[in-house]
Amino acid sequence: MLEKIVALLTDFGSRDVFVGIMKGTMLSVDASVRCVDLTHAVPPQDVQTGAFELYSSYRYFPVGTVFCAVVDPGVGSERKPVAVETSRYRFVGPDNGLLFPAVNDDKIKRIVSIENEDIYQRPVATTFHGRDIFAPAAAHLAAGMELERLGPVQKSLIRLDFPEQVQTAGGLKLTFLYIDTFGNIVLNIRREDLNRFLTGRGFDLRIGSLHITSLREHYTQAEMGELFLIDGSFGYLEISARDQSAADILNVEPGDTGILSRQ
Amino acid sequence: MLEKIVALLTDFGSRDVFVGIMKGTMLSVDASVRCVDLTHAVPPQDVQTGAFELYSSYRYFPVGTVFCAVVDPGVGSERKPVAVETSRYRFVGPDNGLLFPAVNDDKIKRIVSIENEDIYQRPVATTFHGRDIFAPAAAHLAAGMELERLGPVQKSLIRLDFPEQVQTAGGLKLTFLYIDTFGNIVLNIRREDLNRFLTGRGFDLRIGSLHITSLREHYTQAEMGELFLIDGSFGYLEISARDQSAADILNVEPGDTGILSRQ
Amino acid sequence: MLEKIVALLTDFGSRDVFVGIMKGTMLSVDASVRCVDLTHAVPPQDVQTGAFELYSSYRYFPVGTVFCAVVDPGVGSERKPVAVETSRYRFVGPDNGLLFPAVNDDKIKRIVSIENEDIYQRPVATTFHGRDIFAPAAAHLAAGMELERLGPVQKSLIRLDFPEQVQTAGGLKLTFLYIDTFGNIVLNIRREDLNRFLTGRGFDLRIGSLHITSLREHYTQAEMGELFLIDGSFGYLEISARDQSAADILNVEPGDTGILSRQ
Repeated sequence: MLEKIVALLTDFGSRDVFVGIMKGTMLSVDASVRCVDLTHAVPPQDVQTGAFELYSSYRYFPVGTVFCAVVDPGVGSERKPVAVETSRYRFVGPDNGLLFPAVNDDKIKRIVSIENEDIYQRPVATTFHGRDIFAPAAAHLAAGMELERLGPVQKSLIRLDFPEQVQTAGGLKLTFLYIDTFGNIVLNIRREDLNRFLTGRGFDLRIGSLHITSLREHYTQAEMGELFLIDGSFGYLEISARDQSAADILNVEPGDTGILSRQ
Repeated sequence: MLEKIVALLTDFGSRDVFVGIMKGTMLSVDASVRCVDLTHAVPPQDVQTGAFELYSSYRYFPVGTVFCAVVDPGVGSERKPVAVETSRYRFVGPDNGLLFPAVNDDKIKRIVSIENEDIYQRPVATTFHGRDIFAPAAAHLAAGMELERLGPVQKSLIRLDFPEQVQTAGGLKLTFLYIDTFGNIVLNIRREDLNRFLTGRGFDLRIGSLHITSLREHYTQAEMGELFLIDGSFGYLEISARDQSAADILNVEPGDTGILSRQ
Repeated sequence: MLEKIVALLTDFGSRDVFVGIMKGTMLSVDASVRCVDLTHAVPPQDVQTGAFELYSSYRYFPVGTVFCAVVDPGVGSERKPVAVETSRYRFVGPDNGLLFPAVNDDKIKRIVSIENEDIYQRPVATTFHGRDIFAPAAAHLAAGMELERLGPVQKSLIRLDFPEQVQTAGGLKLTFLYIDTFGNIVLNIRREDLNRFLTGRGFDLRIGSLHITSLREHYTQAEMGELFLIDGSFGYLEISARDQSAADILNVEPGDTGILSRQ
């Protein structure tokens, strides 16, 4: 039996029934659809963070999975609801950049604007396209509907790019892409980039008045209280502290920066 | 294959293993039952809020879904565990009003008191009927058991009604039914009721010393800082503020009221 | 159709995508695996609490369920990833005591160290064995793989025992095993142990300067403000307060103690 998997990512939180209602709506389209939660705790309306989380997660799912992603400050306005087919997956969500890093990474094959009102859950609330447009579209795709039946082809998507490393007089400026629940800080540099930059020398990563100079292979190698770099599970280097929140120690937020230099 | 869907609504929270244990218990009855979470964050023992959330959600699920709802301050005392068959669904929970608005809306066909101890998970803890009575009852129903096998028919249920609009000298008194995670305030008035009340004129909704006079079609139409009415996804008008919590601005709670008048 | 159920218990929280990624990884091994959440809110790195929650939950799941438990302060270091077959279930997790109470209770049949890198998700991050080792191992077991194919047999596991009752001059010293979301305090004594200890007399349980002297059959029997014992759903006596958090009233934490004496 072919499994019809829909993975969900939203900023709806888990207190209200919104996510449950989306699942009910999908099951009403096809009761054999299987919903898997990626997260519903994207910070409200934080498209950049949602995009990073979707980009970081999608590749672990089986080929054919449909992703239904809703972080949608413009709900009910002129932004388009879209469905995107990539090399291995399909994605449904608002065209506001949320899907872009993931679909661009997996190679975009086709994009449609979800304008076929026959698949909408009616009446459509202007405040809850998650229930009325995105959930049924995702369920129909999972159940086998062709992408083009959702609406007309559109050429491109709103872009959203993660911040790049910037060469400055003082060193390489790095940006904090994401901070997880434990306070680990994801940097926009991969380990191989660091190695190339260092050419065998040591490093100094300066954040405000604090300096990080060690790279650890796993958490238990670090001293208590030490801030260190580690090769994180998202594929980027992360700043961590053993049994503590590095983000709390440094008092930083996503989007803040540090300066990396050779020693 | 017939899908055996059980939708769950409780006030058990998601920190403890209680909900996981309920799911295990259902899977032990029939391993092909599929559990879908509506919410587990009903405020503890808040039957009124749970009843509103169940009422607002049930209709989005496929016909045949079994709802297992547990907000049960009287657990272990004389209140009855009941199962209700309606036009399209079945519901399991305590007879304390929690199920009433939903089952009444979908039309009650049969009610039984769950007294058949053969289906109980044993031993029955007086503090956790969710695990020992409601979960197995819901799973047996989903797996095809007839309602009457759960216990003797009972005639009626404890009623729970949402607060009604009240005509006062100053205007129409509206009550706040629900406040969502984002601080949107659900009023006990639908848009068509408002239109009928206004007969083409403008409106003033007074909450304490603040006045709301605008109705928006979607969030992005509103000014920053503006409090406005919007036709919400629950089917009622809601008070919202763009990118802010209306409930925080107004400092109100469910059950609080406002006065609506024509302008 | 045989259901392939994997029950998950972690300390990853529900804010990040870590749990969603683990589920994606399992579905990539076998898309018909069904993941059930036990909890993801074990206090970070609190192996003792996780062990109690797993021990208290496992028996409600159908025979054959695979448990994937990850509370793993030593991730990436020399602690072993293990898989354990018991009388009725299989368990996957770090060999740090987390699995011990559950597998010991259900009777250990075989233990293997998960060293077969063919089943790992590659590349293996030193910080996320949940994704790269435990999730695929659990999915392979659920899908039918023999335990021995995961790696070489190992003789024993790191033990973790719950605190025992201690006879002291002042009475029987009891330890608080667990405190749930509602503030109910689980004691390391069962009702039949209490009855045996009391030999028909009354009791006094002293915690700091407060005394508990009543045992209730259900919550609604208690007075408002009263602290009382009740036979809890975990199979142990619990300290509760009606509509209040007993733990807040007593200002205690797991691991704290009280003194029980006959009256």
